[in-house]
Amino acid sequence: MLKIEHIGIAVKDIESSNALFAKLFGEPHYKTEAVESEGVKTSFFKVGPNKIELLEGTNENSPITKFIEKKGEGIHHIAFDVADINAEINRLKNEGFVVLNEIPKKGADNKLVVFLHPKGTNGVLVELCQEIKD
Amino acid sequence: MLKIEHIGIAVKDIESSNALFAKLFGEPHYKTEAVESEGVKTSFFKVGPNKIELLEGTNENSPITKFIEKKGEGIHHIAFDVADINAEINRLKNEGFVVLNEIPKKGADNKLVVFLHPKGTNGVLVELCQEIKD
Repeated sequence: MLKIEHIGIAVKDIESSNALFAKLFGEPHYKTEAVESEGVKTSFFKVGPNKIELLEGTNENSPITKFIEKKGEGIHHIAFDVADINAEINRLKNEGFVVLNEIPKKGADNKLVVFLHPKGTNGVLVELCQEIKD
Repeated sequence: MLKIEHIGIAVKDIESSNALFAKLFGEPHYKTEAVESEGVKTSFFKVGPNKIELLEGTNENSPITKFIEKKGEGIHHIAFDVADINAEINRLKNEGFVVLNEIPKKGADNKLVVFLHPKGTNGVLVELCQEIKD
């Protein structure tokens, strides 16, 4: 794994959170993106080599809406940048981790992504992501 | 803010979690450290420019023990590396953030640290840290 690519934070109202995190970091988010298949609106902030992704659920079935109902706003997942996502999926399956989608799917920010089940990682929802190169 | 310095993860049993995260990252933790004033044992993993800190509470009054009682194991805080922690404290106070300790204290890993109240940051416990230079 190359670095922490981003930390995902579940928020109720992305507009007001964009203003809040702009104050925290001293600069505004640099892009927004909707991922309709996941029922989320996202915004991204840069912090040196890393990013912060804010996520607001856009419907009641969104994983983000359900997360906030259960746990409140806060850190939702941690994403690691990997060089070869399929090799990492195989390596982690062999180590006993539960991969939630064995075929990487298209996530926000031009990435192929896969999630590990948090029951196998001390309650931490881990995402692996690899940039899609056209 | 320069980068994500580390992500803190609250665990019940740091020995078994060290083994688990070594499998996840493909390499073992590189150091352990007890912070007696906070009632924690910690271990650190490197992931490129970032770190993962595992934290186990060593007594029932430890913030980590209380966190796990309330929310279960999982991501506890996100720490950002800053160049001048006192300047950041002043800037963030002026922006309306609630700084939990206005005078930076000595944390793990040779750092001066300060925490922001999570009620002012969408439920995220934010730590700022600056390396102590002797």
